[in-house]
Amino acid sequence: MKTKTLLAAALVCVLAFTTTIIRAADALPSWNDGKARQSIVDFVAKVTKEGSPDFVPPAERIATFDNDGTLWAEQPMYFQFLFAIDRVKALAPQHPEWKDKEPFASLLKGDLKGALASGEKALIEIVIGTHADLTTEEFEKIVKDWIATATHPITKRPYTGMAYQPMLELLAYLRANGFKTFIVSGGGIEFMRAFAEQVYGIPPEQVIGSSGKLKFEMRDGKPVLVKLPAVEFIDDKADKPVAIQKFIGRRPLAAFGNSDGDLQMLQWTAAGSGPRFCLYIHHTDAAREWAYDRTSHIGKLDKGLDEAAAKGWTVVSMKDDWKTIFPPKQ
Amino acid sequence: MKTKTLLAAALVCVLAFTTTIIRAADALPSWNDGKARQSIVDFVAKVTKEGSPDFVPPAERIATFDNDGTLWAEQPMYFQFLFAIDRVKALAPQHPEWKDKEPFASLLKGDLKGALASGEKALIEIVIGTHADLTTEEFEKIVKDWIATATHPITKRPYTGMAYQPMLELLAYLRANGFKTFIVSGGGIEFMRAFAEQVYGIPPEQVIGSSGKLKFEMRDGKPVLVKLPAVEFIDDKADKPVAIQKFIGRRPLAAFGNSDGDLQMLQWTAAGSGPRFCLYIHHTDAAREWAYDRTSHIGKLDKGLDEAAAKGWTVVSMKDDWKTIFPPKQ
Repeated sequence: MKTKTLLAAALVCVLAFTTTIIRAADALPSWNDGKARQSIVDFVAKVTKEGSPDFVPPAERIATFDNDGTLWAEQPMYFQFLFAIDRVKALAPQHPEWKDKEPFASLLKGDLKGALASGEKALIEIVIGTHADLTTEEFEKIVKDWIATATHPITKRPYTGMAYQPMLELLAYLRANGFKTFIVSGGGIEFMRAFAEQVYGIPPEQVIGSSGKLKFEMRDGKPVLVKLPAVEFIDDKADKPVAIQKFIGRRPLAAFGNSDGDLQMLQWTAAGSGPRFCLYIHHTDAAREWAYDRTSHIGKLDKGLDEAAAKGWTVVSMKDDWKTIFPPKQ
Repeated sequence: MKTKTLLAAALVCVLAFTTTIIRAADALPSWNDGKARQSIVDFVAKVTKEGSPDFVPPAERIATFDNDGTLWAEQPMYFQFLFAIDRVKALAPQHPEWKDKEPFASLLKGDLKGALASGEKALIEIVIGTHADLTTEEFEKIVKDWIATATHPITKRPYTGMAYQPMLELLAYLRANGFKTFIVSGGGIEFMRAFAEQVYGIPPEQVIGSSGKLKFEMRDGKPVLVKLPAVEFIDDKADKPVAIQKFIGRRPLAAFGNSDGDLQMLQWTAAGSGPRFCLYIHHTDAAREWAYDRTSHIGKLDKGLDEAAAKGWTVVSMKDDWKTIFPPKQ
């Protein structure tokens, strides 16, 4: 090869190398330059440095993320519940019996408090009543149509616009560094899969969540999978590590959550050998998002906050650590 | 850029292109040049050709494989059962009560037939009795130790040496063409994960199988996952498409099996829109492996054989289509 060609090749290599270094600093533009951001960058640098004793091969760079309150907002209630309420309204004409049946009756009268009087049971009733008997393909289409058109009751944003911009950058940054990103959430697995690839760049096979039972059957000579009116698995608390083992079969290298429901996932991650990274999102920004923690009905973070302090896990204060919360409006 | 540099670049491109074409033919050296091999190569060429109406984006190139009888042998009985028998023998001194308790008593006397008299129930008893109460990490180590040292009672090969060489080539060929390869097997998920990466190049998060219940608990202040003595899911027949939906969330583009237990997985795959590929391994080689199909106790292939003929699925005759069965001895 001629000298000029060699020089040109060398220049390309230098540019590529420089770009990589710059990228690490520029990849998280919505994060303020503080302890939280630094802890992320330091950890990633440590486990990706070949030859270092802390180096972790790419195949083992598993990062698990809770969804509600960690990747997107969860107030005034889980968005899947708002979806189910919209479904109740849309399906009401086909279900005249709902007029006299709780929690549907209260819901149709606009009485949310009455509908939720029976607590978690009411929520599950509503979700099951509106999701069951659909094929998986029908359900996927309904969620996709809803997410493309529905807006949040308070912010009036589309729900996909309520993903956290700093977390979208973090997902991309981790993937650029060889991590495989998973969702491990209490949300419905089929619900999240309908938008996780578009919004988070996370493919369906890397989405883990709560599930209802499914049945394989023939309809008009064609095989379909039908959603049954029965809960199969609630992906929360001590069942998050169980789900991680079942679906992934490896302990995460890094785990991200925002509530006590994520505590066992973080404990399980932290207890692995070698370097591990655990991070809690702390909702501290009443002005730009919501502020809640130890006594909140949704997304309660109490024990987790104490354990994070005791163990030295990273705690992100949304107010102090994030320059922006949501992506720019489109 | 100078003309010479351009020419050099063009030459590199031509070489790379030629290599790709040669690779398609050379990637399956243990396959005879027949209809089965051709159907695979044709399908892969079709779905990977950009701009073609049959082109499928890499993210959707999901290929699912049964394990026992499809990726490795399954005679004279499923290898996991042979593993469990070895465990019974190893654990017998700690379980004096097994001397009077079936199926353990017969097994310890070397009476396999007596042990299996109660059928599938006996098998599950043995598997549960030898796998339960271990942590997932303890179990993984036991399987890894076993697979590294145990040998097959008839061939005297290590079990990893009873993977099918043509299928190892097929897995690699599909992955080289952008496919993501999954195991979807009736075998135990934790059992298979202990060797799937080493033997098949399939990482734990792409292994789906039958499972026992797991429990998260603290032992000496450290979180562990413990295997409970309870079956959670049997990944067979109509529950294979259910498991595919639950774990992968996408319909496979291609599916590979060898028994009626795989039929619904192939039906589910075939019923997708656009091009799909279904393949049955037919055990026809009594000399080099085993010959069995419609009436076999293990790996029965009856309905599937009829449906494959009716639907035009590829049927591989091990005797005629495979040059070699097992990898060269090491």
